[in-house]
Amino acid sequence: MVSYTEYLYFNTKQKREYVNITHEIERIVSSSGIIEGMVLVSAMHITAGVYVNDAESGLIKDIDEWLQKLAPYAEYNHHKTGETNGDAHLKNLLIGHQVIIPITAGSLDLGQWQQIYYAEFDGQRRKRLIVKVMGEKEGESDEET
Amino acid sequence: MVSYTEYLYFNTKQKREYVNITHEIERIVSSSGIIEGMVLVSAMHITAGVYVNDAESGLIKDIDEWLQKLAPYAEYNHHKTGETNGDAHLKNLLIGHQVIIPITAGSLDLGQWQQIYYAEFDGQRRKRLIVKVMGEKEGESDEET
Amino acid sequence: MVSYTEYLYFNTKQKREYVNITHEIERIVSSSGIIEGMVLVSAMHITAGVYVNDAESGLIKDIDEWLQKLAPYAEYNHHKTGETNGDAHLKNLLIGHQVIIPITAGSLDLGQWQQIYYAEFDGQRRKRLIVKVMGEKEGESDEET
Repeated sequence: MVSYTEYLYFNTKQKREYVNITHEIERIVSSSGIIEGMVLVSAMHITAGVYVNDAESGLIKDIDEWLQKLAPYAEYNHHKTGETNGDAHLKNLLIGHQVIIPITAGSLDLGQWQQIYYAEFDGQRRKRLIVKVMGEKEGESDEET
Repeated sequence: MVSYTEYLYFNTKQKREYVNITHEIERIVSSSGIIEGMVLVSAMHITAGVYVNDAESGLIKDIDEWLQKLAPYAEYNHHKTGETNGDAHLKNLLIGHQVIIPITAGSLDLGQWQQIYYAEFDGQRRKRLIVKVMGEKEGESDEET
Repeated sequence: MVSYTEYLYFNTKQKREYVNITHEIERIVSSSGIIEGMVLVSAMHITAGVYVNDAESGLIKDIDEWLQKLAPYAEYNHHKTGETNGDAHLKNLLIGHQVIIPITAGSLDLGQWQQIYYAEFDGQRRKRLIVKVMGEKEGESDEET
């Protein structure tokens, strides 16, 4: 197994922001030379998420409103520490903080409408994401089907 | 690392349907010849999910009612595009669209009650799932523990 | 690819309990000798979860209250079988039952505040978790970046 790791950095203008990172992940997979395997895309913070869904702007607004409804701003126990981002922790748990994208024949093996998003819930500061590609390069795998 | 990929297709009779795919995944892992590693089971659509839980029919009804409550049919911004399936996108995000099942000694290493489900939220049309087995065949691994 | 598997066992005093397993996972990765790859941490029950978030006690209380709100104790169809843990199944689906932690240079490649938790939703009995480390040992990988 070969592995290849890059880190992506974000500093969003808004507190909550949804960033399409599909092309960045494609670029990293291409740099890795890995043609068969998978790529792990995982937020390194507990107030941000990673998900796969549609790039349609109305839907992104729906997702944001839905997250606000199910994990709203409120008075959380966590805020006794001086923090104010309890909602962002719960949004992270709701949406999830990582996805695995399969790689087949050198490309992300995604469905037609599947796009990879970094979801920031406590932005306006530097945040980090790990992208780890794992698999086999051309001619090195025992078998590819 | 060896990898082996198959695609499963669904065309459910109902709009929302929960399909136990455990035996299909077992069959694919067996076909792969991989005895140590994992299998990624991932929906290729943004209106369907994959999860692991119980095969009990009452619980499946509970899951469906719970998803309807937390991600209901409603007027979504997404519907301005002509779509009517905003709820299905949110259900996909709530339940998740993929699982990784460990493979040990040639079998799915699942707990006694763990079953793998394909959850359709916008069915009555052809949908696709990727199953990618990754690991080592007998005698090819550096070490198996 | 090398793989290494251990099982962790839990028997919590409370019905619902949140156990920080980060050091246990670090120990298992160290035992595996794998320095580049990933570790799958996956509950083998359908009434327990695994997630990554903060070790702050106030936040853990917030997470518990939030799970109780979104997946409450109630009369579920599942209870017609004699079971009483319908809520625990839904909490499992909400929080997720597994995470993948990347391994870089022999260590868990986590952000500063990321801690790995086993979330028990139907405890006071023996439960099991699988930890499978997959990747390459020093000098055995084709390439490490």
